[in-house]
Amino acid sequence: MQFSSVLLETAVNEFAKLPGIGRKTALRLVLHLLRQDPSAAQGFGETVMKMRQEIRFCQRCHNVADADICSICSNSMRRQDMICVVETIRDVIAIESTQQFSGTYHVLGGIISPLDGIGPEQLFIDSLVDRVQKEGVTEIIFALSPNIQGDTTIYYIQKKLASLPVKVTTISRGISFGGELEYADEMTLARSISNRLPVESYVSHR
Amino acid sequence: MQFSSVLLETAVNEFAKLPGIGRKTALRLVLHLLRQDPSAAQGFGETVMKMRQEIRFCQRCHNVADADICSICSNSMRRQDMICVVETIRDVIAIESTQQFSGTYHVLGGIISPLDGIGPEQLFIDSLVDRVQKEGVTEIIFALSPNIQGDTTIYYIQKKLASLPVKVTTISRGISFGGELEYADEMTLARSISNRLPVESYVSHR
Repeated sequence: MQFSSVLLETAVNEFAKLPGIGRKTALRLVLHLLRQDPSAAQGFGETVMKMRQEIRFCQRCHNVADADICSICSNSMRRQDMICVVETIRDVIAIESTQQFSGTYHVLGGIISPLDGIGPEQLFIDSLVDRVQKEGVTEIIFALSPNIQGDTTIYYIQKKLASLPVKVTTISRGISFGGELEYADEMTLARSISNRLPVESYVSHR
Repeated sequence: MQFSSVLLETAVNEFAKLPGIGRKTALRLVLHLLRQDPSAAQGFGETVMKMRQEIRFCQRCHNVADADICSICSNSMRRQDMICVVETIRDVIAIESTQQFSGTYHVLGGIISPLDGIGPEQLFIDSLVDRVQKEGVTEIIFALSPNIQGDTTIYYIQKKLASLPVKVTTISRGISFGGELEYADEMTLARSISNRLPVESYVSHR
């Protein structure tokens, strides 16, 4: 792509560094900002810089936060004795959007994956065990990826928690709502048969 | 989507204002910037603001420019007597990327489209006629959209230029390189037959 303006080219290059944004898309975004009032691009740029400068990570659950402790951990209306263990911040947002969980979270920062060079020591596992020991936690709910790495991580953490008086659960696996039986993989289908639910409890959730 | 950080939410909202970027994609982009070094987000934000503040539009051809006159208009190596008339800045970038055109451009800012409320007076047509009169222009090449609006615009401008000693041409229409005959629309196919080329001239262009 040939540009007659260095300013334009530099801006396109910056957008094209973002994941999933090619140069044509980057150009479309930059030309959009160029058509708007100057205050729009100003606000956009300032927001991005302010976000990166001021955002913090919760010292307790490692979620993104505007202060030392995130708004979920500091909310006294939420059950502080129930921790949902997730891989990333994105998972917290996904679960929060269901509005079905009233406990707190613990963001591991990934899952154990030797092939990617990620071992337990790179994840926030010690701080989770620490929370369980000191905060009187009654239940840990694992909401990790449904694969070998996720299962390995659950197994590893569960062993660390074995001596502590805490209930350990994992979110249920099964056929997605709206999913077609014939397209489900064998593993999911097999698990959803072995973990079958009484129809009364299924109906009551609708 | 539920966020536990106002800073994060504000940044996602800013990205989601961009065309073709939904909230999920916006979140992915923001989390990407969050994983990078703070200087990356700083550079990104500053580039966008600087671009919007400092970019100008060429006083001659209305293309984007870093100065009063764009780098194409001020390049003495280019044929200043040949003007390619396009709708938008994006068309200039597309044609420049072919590296086949050595003249200058004139960005109309759109095409005549009564249904969208765009009349000739909203486009840079007067300044084009002015350039032809004052700059000794020998050829005008129209590179507008191949539709009714494009043809209307060509017709309108051509009438304005009728009394001036300038050659007026339009880029050729035809089957795209690599295109399949059977999928071409009738109009394109009909035009490409009536505007057929001698094989020698076709071969020499390869």
